[in-house]
Amino acid sequence: MLTLTDSEIEKQYFMKDAIKDTLALFNKLEQEQIIVEHRTVIEMPNTHNAMLYMPCLDLKEKLGTIKVISIFPDNPKVNLSTTQGKILITELETGQHKAIIDASYLTRLRTGALSGIATDYLSRKDSRVLGVIGTGGMAFEQVLGILEVRNIEHIYLFNRTFKKAQLFKEKLQDFGINVEISVTQDVQEVVQQSDIINCATRSNEAVFNAKDLKEGTHINGVGSYQPSMREIDINAIKKSSKIVFDDIGGAQTEAGEFIQAEKEGHFSFGSTYGDLQQLVLHKINGREDETETTIYKSVGAAHFDLAVGIGVFKKLFS
Amino acid sequence: MLTLTDSEIEKQYFMKDAIKDTLALFNKLEQEQIIVEHRTVIEMPNTHNAMLYMPCLDLKEKLGTIKVISIFPDNPKVNLSTTQGKILITELETGQHKAIIDASYLTRLRTGALSGIATDYLSRKDSRVLGVIGTGGMAFEQVLGILEVRNIEHIYLFNRTFKKAQLFKEKLQDFGINVEISVTQDVQEVVQQSDIINCATRSNEAVFNAKDLKEGTHINGVGSYQPSMREIDINAIKKSSKIVFDDIGGAQTEAGEFIQAEKEGHFSFGSTYGDLQQLVLHKINGREDETETTIYKSVGAAHFDLAVGIGVFKKLFS
Repeated sequence: MLTLTDSEIEKQYFMKDAIKDTLALFNKLEQEQIIVEHRTVIEMPNTHNAMLYMPCLDLKEKLGTIKVISIFPDNPKVNLSTTQGKILITELETGQHKAIIDASYLTRLRTGALSGIATDYLSRKDSRVLGVIGTGGMAFEQVLGILEVRNIEHIYLFNRTFKKAQLFKEKLQDFGINVEISVTQDVQEVVQQSDIINCATRSNEAVFNAKDLKEGTHINGVGSYQPSMREIDINAIKKSSKIVFDDIGGAQTEAGEFIQAEKEGHFSFGSTYGDLQQLVLHKINGREDETETTIYKSVGAAHFDLAVGIGVFKKLFS
Repeated sequence: MLTLTDSEIEKQYFMKDAIKDTLALFNKLEQEQIIVEHRTVIEMPNTHNAMLYMPCLDLKEKLGTIKVISIFPDNPKVNLSTTQGKILITELETGQHKAIIDASYLTRLRTGALSGIATDYLSRKDSRVLGVIGTGGMAFEQVLGILEVRNIEHIYLFNRTFKKAQLFKEKLQDFGINVEISVTQDVQEVVQQSDIINCATRSNEAVFNAKDLKEGTHINGVGSYQPSMREIDINAIKKSSKIVFDDIGGAQTEAGEFIQAEKEGHFSFGSTYGDLQQLVLHKINGREDETETTIYKSVGAAHFDLAVGIGVFKKLFS
């Protein structure tokens, strides 16, 4: 049984790989080569803890995965991550279990890859300024995803805790990202300057004001994964011409500000523009003019984990 | 991430351990400290292959497991096992995934442990002769389970392929089992001599004739795991005063000869004597006189895997 830790994967499997493998997934989905089962959730009584089990098969690669995630919201109190995941990889010619690999980096990476792909279709080609709102756990790979698809010259960083945004800047520089990076305590400045805005927060209210948006901005939202959460200003939802989800079914039960916008009559999941798969397979158009406001909203789904889990396995072991 | 192969587990975790840990499970079930979720089954299109996922939590030990099994019926053609399993063990204080261990030996071991426990409650205390019908993959640990609970002096072995029964005798002797062992091509002899009969076959018809049973015999059946299968003679079902299942729900959809017996009106799952949990917790009586014919029928269930998976983890790592 092969094993890989997050840090071993980080050294060998990169954003470029994740984007390639995720794009390939959409074709396999279209060709019905992917089997996704409903996830099993076990909530532990008298706690806020839960165990999630997400099995998925790739019939083309003849590899199956199950991601097992523990979600323990009190973990940060003891300096542990809230979520801890493993992906078990099974070869489907003979059913042999081949590898078990850490899933934390991969989950962040595939989320960043999906934002990158969405941004490639939806943002202006000449986008130069990226605004990052929320520099927590998911943000780093979000930036990597955007840098992979656009020639970004300037990144603005905003975080509720200023110090963390400064550390995030250092992390980007240490990684070798050689663009201008400004850390600011003024979220309005971020929004007014940016061509692309990435939100990755756990906020319960909008983290920016839609009035500050430049014409033609593209927004990525990867926070707001519970109905009570808000991150993207509902007025930005109202003024957007194209809203694309990674998984519309998942968004309907999880994407807080969109659920709220639907309740208030400003938006409807039933008549939404489409999902990332449609975008990648050219069933719907990407950006059509320079003035559109566009949004990509991500909540995650098991087959995205499958794509990168199998990608790692194929790159490293076969 | 700790890993253990079948052979590593075999050297350190024994029938005695499995019986102890399985008995403890029944008390935890009674105290509602075990959460068992419905298993997920993915059948692979255009094959007979399937993937099974069985998650389960032990709130008392604060450990969770998921057993992932691949069932590939054509595997023997390429000298691989039909079923291949792994158990992932997660610590439930902080959600950290601790170990992934092979599940093949443990599945056989817990099945043997359960037969041992059932036999302890249902067979005559003075049982001296064990008859083994079917010396295939499951049989070895079945014998170990019986030897743990009764003073067996003589074992009769019968297998459709005689040579395999002879090899099985050698395996028992190599393991250090120091009782008389007879290999026979005459299944009638086995049945006429035995106080306890263990069936572990993939037969589609009864493997013995109930007329040959001695008075007061106890029968264990661990084959017949599909509705089309038959192993225990339906006349033995008819004459049994106590039929105990490991899992009545599972048996209703899997235990071939009992499904057939119900169809023919000789038996009813609805009014069956009870299950192993009731037996162990003294909700129903074990053997009450020396003349009863009794049957224990096993189809398996996720929480039994949990018991031994956690047992191994606690014995070896904590």
